[in-house]
Amino acid sequence: MSAASSESKKVPVGVSARHIHLSQEHVEILFGAGATLTEFKPLSQPGQFAANETVAVYGPKGSFPKVRILGPSRKATQLEISRTDAFSLGIQAPLRESGNIEGTPGIRIVGPAGEVTVDKGVIVAARHIHFHTSDAERWGIMDKQLLKVLVGGVRGVVFEQVLARVSDQFALDMHIDTDEGNAAGVSTGNFGEIVE
Amino acid sequence: MSAASSESKKVPVGVSARHIHLSQEHVEILFGAGATLTEFKPLSQPGQFAANETVAVYGPKGSFPKVRILGPSRKATQLEISRTDAFSLGIQAPLRESGNIEGTPGIRIVGPAGEVTVDKGVIVAARHIHFHTSDAERWGIMDKQLLKVLVGGVRGVVFEQVLARVSDQFALDMHIDTDEGNAAGVSTGNFGEIVE
Repeated sequence: MSAASSESKKVPVGVSARHIHLSQEHVEILFGAGATLTEFKPLSQPGQFAANETVAVYGPKGSFPKVRILGPSRKATQLEISRTDAFSLGIQAPLRESGNIEGTPGIRIVGPAGEVTVDKGVIVAARHIHFHTSDAERWGIMDKQLLKVLVGGVRGVVFEQVLARVSDQFALDMHIDTDEGNAAGVSTGNFGEIVE
Repeated sequence: MSAASSESKKVPVGVSARHIHLSQEHVEILFGAGATLTEFKPLSQPGQFAANETVAVYGPKGSFPKVRILGPSRKATQLEISRTDAFSLGIQAPLRESGNIEGTPGIRIVGPAGEVTVDKGVIVAARHIHFHTSDAERWGIMDKQLLKVLVGGVRGVVFEQVLARVSDQFALDMHIDTDEGNAAGVSTGNFGEIVE
């Protein structure tokens, strides 16, 4: 980390509930030929949105009837769940960086117009911080660097192994899942501080 | 912390799922006059046990049909849940040290022989470590001291504000809840290290 910077490195925290990204092919299987995702509300990252559409997912042990889809559609379908959710579904979902789904378990996904069973794509997303290039430069942070971030008050934790992701397409935001948010006693809108 | 000790301070981790402690009065309301809790398996703390008996609990939003009772019976009934569980039940359970239940929300509890609605007793238990007096003396740790404990590997976290509880009735064990265990990627049987 750059010695040039002595300012406190505060980062907004976003707590991600379980959600799914769909390929356009799967959007059309689940919602009908020609269907596209429609925006419910924008997310912190430019161009990303929570869709109005939801799907049901079925694991060997349990299911979730209403999983929010995040848009726009992506190259590959990916279900992001907490470790608590993984126990509920009965799926051994590994901790992975988003997009790295080789060798991960699959899941049955049901929409209003059809269903699809994918043979991979279920992950517990590794905690990470999106940095705009300008934030990263100011703080001397490199893409892929692992950081330590203090989050929370009376239930404070230092998250280790927080992956830095740097792009001029990103807005500054730390993404943790609901287990991590609850363990630290924080919600979206709270702030963390990069301590190392 | 004592400067005398340079050995690594390793502590076994126990991840507590949601559970309930019952007063003897409530045991008899829920399981019948004269009923007592029966041991299913012993816990890490001497004399404590998971009971064969379970109860259902009902919050305004959700319920859990089978909550394990931990015995023996106590002075006051207390339901210990994770923050995830609190959202499921629809109850604003505060973070509290076990036994400190003044001003906490109540819950409806149903057993095979009857039901009771308590007006307080639902908490998210504050993480803590039980130290036998000899462990605490060896490591220079005082009762009520707040510690920092590193837990986990690829998903490692440092839990801050970990309360030390020292007694010659205790066995060395760190108690965290399922949110905390999942956020750190650990289960009962893993170890943490006191780092400060």
